[in-house]
Amino acid sequence: MPLPAEFDLISRHFRPLAGPGALELRDDAAVLQPPPGRDLVLTADAMVGGVHFLPDDPPDLVARKLLRVNLSDLAAKGAVPLAYLLTVSAPRDTADTWFAGFASGLAEDQATYRVTLLGGDTTSTPGPLSLSLTIIGHVAPGTAVHRFGASAGDEIWVTGTIGDGALGLAVATGRLSDFSGYLLERYRLPRPRVGLAIAGVASAGMDISDGLVQDLGHICRASDLAAEIDADSVPRSAPARAAGEPWLATCLTGGDDYELLLAVPPARSTALRVAAQDAGIAVTRIGRLMNGPAEVTVRRSDGREMALTRRGWSHF
Amino acid sequence: MPLPAEFDLISRHFRPLAGPGALELRDDAAVLQPPPGRDLVLTADAMVGGVHFLPDDPPDLVARKLLRVNLSDLAAKGAVPLAYLLTVSAPRDTADTWFAGFASGLAEDQATYRVTLLGGDTTSTPGPLSLSLTIIGHVAPGTAVHRFGASAGDEIWVTGTIGDGALGLAVATGRLSDFSGYLLERYRLPRPRVGLAIAGVASAGMDISDGLVQDLGHICRASDLAAEIDADSVPRSAPARAAGEPWLATCLTGGDDYELLLAVPPARSTALRVAAQDAGIAVTRIGRLMNGPAEVTVRRSDGREMALTRRGWSHF
Repeated sequence: MPLPAEFDLISRHFRPLAGPGALELRDDAAVLQPPPGRDLVLTADAMVGGVHFLPDDPPDLVARKLLRVNLSDLAAKGAVPLAYLLTVSAPRDTADTWFAGFASGLAEDQATYRVTLLGGDTTSTPGPLSLSLTIIGHVAPGTAVHRFGASAGDEIWVTGTIGDGALGLAVATGRLSDFSGYLLERYRLPRPRVGLAIAGVASAGMDISDGLVQDLGHICRASDLAAEIDADSVPRSAPARAAGEPWLATCLTGGDDYELLLAVPPARSTALRVAAQDAGIAVTRIGRLMNGPAEVTVRRSDGREMALTRRGWSHF
Repeated sequence: MPLPAEFDLISRHFRPLAGPGALELRDDAAVLQPPPGRDLVLTADAMVGGVHFLPDDPPDLVARKLLRVNLSDLAAKGAVPLAYLLTVSAPRDTADTWFAGFASGLAEDQATYRVTLLGGDTTSTPGPLSLSLTIIGHVAPGTAVHRFGASAGDEIWVTGTIGDGALGLAVATGRLSDFSGYLLERYRLPRPRVGLAIAGVASAGMDISDGLVQDLGHICRASDLAAEIDADSVPRSAPARAAGEPWLATCLTGGDDYELLLAVPPARSTALRVAAQDAGIAVTRIGRLMNGPAEVTVRRSDGREMALTRRGWSHF
């Protein structure tokens, strides 16, 4: 008697992804020996078709984005990725090729980021594809970077370039043209900054997923500080700069950057530059934190304050 | 400036559930010190409106079922629950009272089972409510119970009563009457057998979520053994027995029991009885494992083999 479709799906597409402790996905739960003497770092993110990805996005890119947004949260705490659990709720008519593509994307990024699948669940849904991923990493005890902990006078730094994800969404939805394909690629495939050694360097930090200005506001509130950033020093990619001045506000407030936003005491800025060079990741100073109400002020190079009508992105 | 709805939802409904390491759900990820010298046990389950629960099911019961099906997987490995992460994808028009009820159900069961919320994500969806929960527990090193590991001659035992969940679904969908309300309650609210000390007692085990016969098949395949059970010794509740003979096959093959199915060497059956008494959980011997093809034979007391047309439940 054939086993039901659920077991077949798991066996063909997900079992090859299973790592140590996963018991080949044949058991009720994974059994994992945690790295001795390390703190565990855990986070979960959901992605829904039509909300977080577009229906015709390639399934391997959907998978990699799901894994990478979670890896980005680990990177923001300075954690080393270890393993993940995954639940997939899919319409009954989802093509087998979709699952094959989805699994191949996971396989590719598992190799890149050295994580393995620990367990999960597959179910049907009458709605759109609904994905959830929980990832586990580890850090040396007490060294995890938090949103709180910054001090007045700390510098504000970001990795990479800001705004490509939001502009990529504009490209995907036909509001902006980018013949290079760079922006769309950045929207579809974040580059989590795993490997940047921020523990002991950044006084506070987070990854930018809901827009630079809104996310900096979180750091301000968590540390009870004001922030001021210079819009013109915010690093933008060549295609983002080519989009022109009208898109600057989108870059500062749009979501899906998955770069790191760090508060760094001036005395440690050299250490950050060294860590960034070791990891091959660009870092740029864009502003500073100071005593004052927990608000973000954005200025142009000439000192004018920039008025932003929309400050960030809510996933709800 | 008000924060977006996502933060408001988290703050009002989910923050009160956050426990140690959750950083009040204000950070990118939780930071947890794992219990020293213990193995971690991890599992994830998804539940979708219209598939795993009915649209008008009370939200507190939906929450408790979601938590309990995961607790049941921990119980099957003999693990002590520790904490969980949760993702909720909800339609934009989901009432605030739904979230309040959902959170109150979690709060109630957090107290019962001594687990706390570590983190998660809330998103919108154009489809039905889509929930995913990852739970973490721990066991003494090397003592987790697996689906494999049984030997020929081991007895097959179950906890509690079998079939109430499947009959409860029949009640919920109008195919069966049960004026006591017991069966519907059992369908809506599993009773995970957390606290039954099966480590070192059961040679193999799992929780029964997809039907007794199908799940016993998993143990047979994992241990490469045949199984024979006596249908008339399978424990059924009074309302299940009252449903009558035509519903016996449903009890044996229907899903949603969340009882434990254990292989126990005869020499340890007394130890199982003692552990069951300590935990206040009924256990019943229903059959045995033997050498032979990995198949399940179901017999009546008179030795006749029972033909089952449907052997289990696939969630996909």
